[in-house]
Amino acid sequence: MEPENSTVDVIVVGAGLSGLVSARRLVQAGITSLRVLEARDRVGGRTKLHRLGNGRYVEEGGQLVGPEYKRLIALGEELGVSTWPHNERGKAVFERRGRVIKFSGSMPWTADPLGSADFARSLLRLDRLGKRYRGDEALGTPEAAELDALTFASWVNRSTKSATARTLWAIIATLTLGGTPGDLSLLFVLRHLRAIGGVETLLASLSGGDERSFTGGSAELSLRMAAELGDRVVLDSPTLAIRQYDDHVEVDTPGRTHHARRVVVAMSPSDRAAISVDPQLPLPQRTMGERMSMLHAYKVHVVYPEPFWRRQGLSGATMSDSAPLMLTFDDTPPGEKQGVLVGFARGDGGRSVDLPDPMPTDPVRRREAVLAGLARAFGEEALHPDEYHEMNWTEERWTTGCVPTWPPGLLTTSGPGYAEPAGRLHFAGSETSPRWAGSLEGAVIAGERAAAEVAALATAEAAGVPASR
Amino acid sequence: MEPENSTVDVIVVGAGLSGLVSARRLVQAGITSLRVLEARDRVGGRTKLHRLGNGRYVEEGGQLVGPEYKRLIALGEELGVSTWPHNERGKAVFERRGRVIKFSGSMPWTADPLGSADFARSLLRLDRLGKRYRGDEALGTPEAAELDALTFASWVNRSTKSATARTLWAIIATLTLGGTPGDLSLLFVLRHLRAIGGVETLLASLSGGDERSFTGGSAELSLRMAAELGDRVVLDSPTLAIRQYDDHVEVDTPGRTHHARRVVVAMSPSDRAAISVDPQLPLPQRTMGERMSMLHAYKVHVVYPEPFWRRQGLSGATMSDSAPLMLTFDDTPPGEKQGVLVGFARGDGGRSVDLPDPMPTDPVRRREAVLAGLARAFGEEALHPDEYHEMNWTEERWTTGCVPTWPPGLLTTSGPGYAEPAGRLHFAGSETSPRWAGSLEGAVIAGERAAAEVAALATAEAAGVPASR
Repeated sequence: MEPENSTVDVIVVGAGLSGLVSARRLVQAGITSLRVLEARDRVGGRTKLHRLGNGRYVEEGGQLVGPEYKRLIALGEELGVSTWPHNERGKAVFERRGRVIKFSGSMPWTADPLGSADFARSLLRLDRLGKRYRGDEALGTPEAAELDALTFASWVNRSTKSATARTLWAIIATLTLGGTPGDLSLLFVLRHLRAIGGVETLLASLSGGDERSFTGGSAELSLRMAAELGDRVVLDSPTLAIRQYDDHVEVDTPGRTHHARRVVVAMSPSDRAAISVDPQLPLPQRTMGERMSMLHAYKVHVVYPEPFWRRQGLSGATMSDSAPLMLTFDDTPPGEKQGVLVGFARGDGGRSVDLPDPMPTDPVRRREAVLAGLARAFGEEALHPDEYHEMNWTEERWTTGCVPTWPPGLLTTSGPGYAEPAGRLHFAGSETSPRWAGSLEGAVIAGERAAAEVAALATAEAAGVPASR
Repeated sequence: MEPENSTVDVIVVGAGLSGLVSARRLVQAGITSLRVLEARDRVGGRTKLHRLGNGRYVEEGGQLVGPEYKRLIALGEELGVSTWPHNERGKAVFERRGRVIKFSGSMPWTADPLGSADFARSLLRLDRLGKRYRGDEALGTPEAAELDALTFASWVNRSTKSATARTLWAIIATLTLGGTPGDLSLLFVLRHLRAIGGVETLLASLSGGDERSFTGGSAELSLRMAAELGDRVVLDSPTLAIRQYDDHVEVDTPGRTHHARRVVVAMSPSDRAAISVDPQLPLPQRTMGERMSMLHAYKVHVVYPEPFWRRQGLSGATMSDSAPLMLTFDDTPPGEKQGVLVGFARGDGGRSVDLPDPMPTDPVRRREAVLAGLARAFGEEALHPDEYHEMNWTEERWTTGCVPTWPPGLLTTSGPGYAEPAGRLHFAGSETSPRWAGSLEGAVIAGERAAAEVAALATAEAAGVPASR
């Protein structure tokens, strides 16, 4: 293909889902002189398959395919990767202050009618408030600034009376919005709700029941795209520095400088902040790198001889303010003999109102605490798994965390400009998508958008139209 | 001195005030095998002198010596750098929604009695609330988590009724606490107040009147310390990577690897985030780098033939919600013929409730807007300066901003552990000081503390006590 020192048309920094989507769409658009630089020894970024001792696999990273994930579903179909539905039959379990409640439907109505009613009322209020957010053109208004100056926690405190409602919001925020209510801008929450279509869509993603998983894991998408791209993908090549000139860009990896006409940076802004960029990025893009952090969390899989909770009429879905796993659901593929529970736990080391303490630091105590929590929900059988596997994304060398956390003030200072090109640099990565930022769908949306930007410029240049920097 | 490739006892990364204090105290403690690595072509970090065309100088960075700055004052005396007091005679000017009010004392009582009373009432409430913060041992409590989940803006909204009070809080927060009320954790504000001794200390630093400046500029401290340290200080050497081993540390600068027994990283956590550190830092230190951002702001000097505002009975102090310079004061050294005003403006590009819009991006319009604001306060004479000089710290290659912004959630996740050593790495830099973080005093406190840590370990090692990693 390209000689090693030639200038390629495009370098894509990052072979995660978003970067590979970008690269593949560019090749499809005829831009074949392209290189994808990846820091790790594998592609897939925050999607990753892990093989257990017994030959079966679990997904350590981004996994779920929501029914609203139109671009992701289309990509899966293009690449011939099928999906399977999660089990949603049976009752869910809600644990609050050590009390375990089993319930049907989406909320623990029967067990805690007052708390549930309180939560439902606040749900409607949030949906109404969400309608006040009139899209990104509203970001420069005083009203937006006022909402961006508050945390979601201050809204939750005002809008709920019961501890149950606050616990539910704390768990929902952490797992679907990327932070505890106290970490998040209220404006970000409203913008997110509007972008995805309301509170109901948000809640549907919690049980896993409405969602599907890719057969062979979501990482399979990246593996197939990388196979198509062939030796354009270069592993073990962390980007250390990017220097932009009038007519080209230089990208340093250890021991080598790459040259390209344009660069697509396909990373989270938080990870990107570790790359030296000359000249400095425009303020909105810089501010994203400086202020957006990534959620520190664990994803835990526990494999049992069979999905024994189903015998008890339970779905495997739990929410807890006391167990390290704040939320679990059934991750057993259809037709499997073994039963798999997947759960999520905080890994940020801090205390938080209405949420359990983060995982113990000692690995033995951590496993004990996780299994004890499952035993409270599902009985003694939960104490004896075949396999136990943890993934702590915070410990990954090239990842600051799993999904983005938008603190107060970030949206109104970065505005919608944070995903705009900066000269010859374009930005992909799930976090740069206005919809479903941080999810697989956001990764595909952002990757396709960045590829479209670059392809349009290349076409214009080929037609002799002077490229604007 | 040391041969180039030898292992030194200590490398200090960063020749700002804090790093140089560390290095100097280490040499004083007998640790003379030491190297200070600095990215820029000068020492002093966020303190910097700028010479104007007419031969006089202005300070582009950290400047004020508060009466509470005990360690800074002691350092100045040691180094033989004297100080001069700012002018505080005359009335101050308060501009709100284009209306200009002149007032004596600390608040615009006479001009806006209701707003001033409202502000004073909220001041007392904040002082009372501040007493609830019981020191850093309280960081793990549910009460701390609750306060850390709220922004200072949510407290201001609750505690004030008038627009005047909210404007005053917005300006005070931005200029003395490192962010708009919406950017800041309420817990951080309370912790800061407790650490410095209450709201009154905070307010005293606003007019410049209670404070002094170093003769020759605060950068003079760094220049004198660097002269003492001699060729131990190596300029133009940005640290790209730090690798820690059991018995030594490697520090990469372009084209060279340095070896040391211990390293003091003397940078803001936000700037440090651009350095690749292996193995990864512990969670509290990482979280600081990921979530703490630095205020984006301008410091502007305007030099006039004489301090003409004094003729009008004015002190030069202004606060404005309409001028790009939110706050100004008289920066004329005693005995100078020319008059100098210094002012501060937002440079974050965002909108904010109760604060003026940030500076225009066009430099000509920026200057016009600044001078027009001064003319509203001081009359037409303000339109015709001898010199006009801006410093935008956000544009400096090696600085993400001027003072730290603590968002909600950071204190309770990073806790007091963020300044603790990580193996052979120690942390200086003003931001790691529990008192006066972000100021010159914080830089000295942190630098001395880090030096004491390292010196104690070196003494223990010399005495044959096995060093704990």
